[in-house]
Amino acid sequence: MKNKVKVIKIGGGIISDDAALDAFLEKFAQLSGAKVLIHGGGKLATELSKKLGVEVKMIEGRRVTTKEALEVTAMVYAGLINTSICAKLVANGCSALGLSGADANVIASTKRPANPIDFGFVGDVKRVNGAALAGFITQGHTPVLCSITHDQNGQLLNTNADTIASEVAIAMSEHFDVELIYCFEKNGVLRDINDEESVIPEINIDTYAQLCQEGIVNEGMIPKLDNCFNALKRGVTEVVIGNANAPFATKGTYTVLR
Amino acid sequence: MKNKVKVIKIGGGIISDDAALDAFLEKFAQLSGAKVLIHGGGKLATELSKKLGVEVKMIEGRRVTTKEALEVTAMVYAGLINTSICAKLVANGCSALGLSGADANVIASTKRPANPIDFGFVGDVKRVNGAALAGFITQGHTPVLCSITHDQNGQLLNTNADTIASEVAIAMSEHFDVELIYCFEKNGVLRDINDEESVIPEINIDTYAQLCQEGIVNEGMIPKLDNCFNALKRGVTEVVIGNANAPFATKGTYTVLR
Repeated sequence: MKNKVKVIKIGGGIISDDAALDAFLEKFAQLSGAKVLIHGGGKLATELSKKLGVEVKMIEGRRVTTKEALEVTAMVYAGLINTSICAKLVANGCSALGLSGADANVIASTKRPANPIDFGFVGDVKRVNGAALAGFITQGHTPVLCSITHDQNGQLLNTNADTIASEVAIAMSEHFDVELIYCFEKNGVLRDINDEESVIPEINIDTYAQLCQEGIVNEGMIPKLDNCFNALKRGVTEVVIGNANAPFATKGTYTVLR
Repeated sequence: MKNKVKVIKIGGGIISDDAALDAFLEKFAQLSGAKVLIHGGGKLATELSKKLGVEVKMIEGRRVTTKEALEVTAMVYAGLINTSICAKLVANGCSALGLSGADANVIASTKRPANPIDFGFVGDVKRVNGAALAGFITQGHTPVLCSITHDQNGQLLNTNADTIASEVAIAMSEHFDVELIYCFEKNGVLRDINDEESVIPEINIDTYAQLCQEGIVNEGMIPKLDNCFNALKRGVTEVVIGNANAPFATKGTYTVLR
């Protein structure tokens, strides 16, 4: 039987709220067993861009990563947030090891083609070095990954943190029994978007199809859930979607995908 | 017999020069055997401070690390420089592992007392986790340390990169036969400060006393050399002082301290 590992992704909402982040990290540090933390950057990158006069360029509602924007992202995600999270986890007795995808070639990605839309220095995950991550875990460390990857030719790339989480979970499933946990602003997948109490406790591939047909799962959630079911198909044991308490809460308070 | 490890510190001059840094990293990646790289930040932190309007406060000619200055330092050293160096080393086939002192509790430091002068968020090295560094090396990685440490209570601290290099070298000497190499702007310790060809090829503790007496070693070099002889006394096998080519050059072109 494989050892268990929890791969937990936290979103911008928690990262931008100092008290919420501290509370989360204290509990995360105490979580028993092997674990990996993945984070994005929240509002801090936008704030620094504004201060530096780096233009936030958007195409079709999506952010473009210019050279200047990439530098801001690397500074905020890998410099400020990742380092601070690691210092706090270590203070709580967890041997956190902060990583960008470039470190030990942990996540190699491919720059997204400039056609049809040039999103700039954005990378799509190509390969996760699961063996290196497993090696760090074996030595008692907890990998803390920010959403910066690299193209293996020296170029850093900005990469979606949700995708990193699922790709890391899939790669880890060769070595471990993996639970992938997405923490976001909502309590889970909701039957009624306006009612935080309407969490759907469990969804499988059949009930998912039904929820989509009934229009209960809304547009924004569909790519997220597709991503989760893809992870399940490729070796991940269980995916949890919930709020920042989900990794520490009892069943029923969040959504489990199997 | 212990395995050998090279602990190499590069200064701001190389870091601020893209072409020189690329050339250095290409050769560093090819260097055989275990190695550790330590870097500061060069002019980039000052440049970012200016852009952000973060005041560079000085007391008695020495920089004070305010809260804002610390954030800039963490962003530039740990975010931009460290991540870029690692991406370039990995591109050259070296499994670089970027670390701040907070990562895996690698370097714990103590905030310098506010009396007699409050230098702000500056840390003096308290303990280097040589076992963790040795563990990473055993797994085939090359630690790349930036000069950010932490107080083990969640606070990041700005720390002198030269001191980090010597403390890391001393801690590694429990596990390895350590060569500590300082790369700076000059070719080595010079007999005549205006003549780059006047490198003193070898200095020991006796000839050092003599050079000080004769006034050949100038004021600026004395703390640096004291630091080196301290490292030798505490277990380091050999200290080299030279330019960015020293780690790859033949004997005689740099200064060796024994």
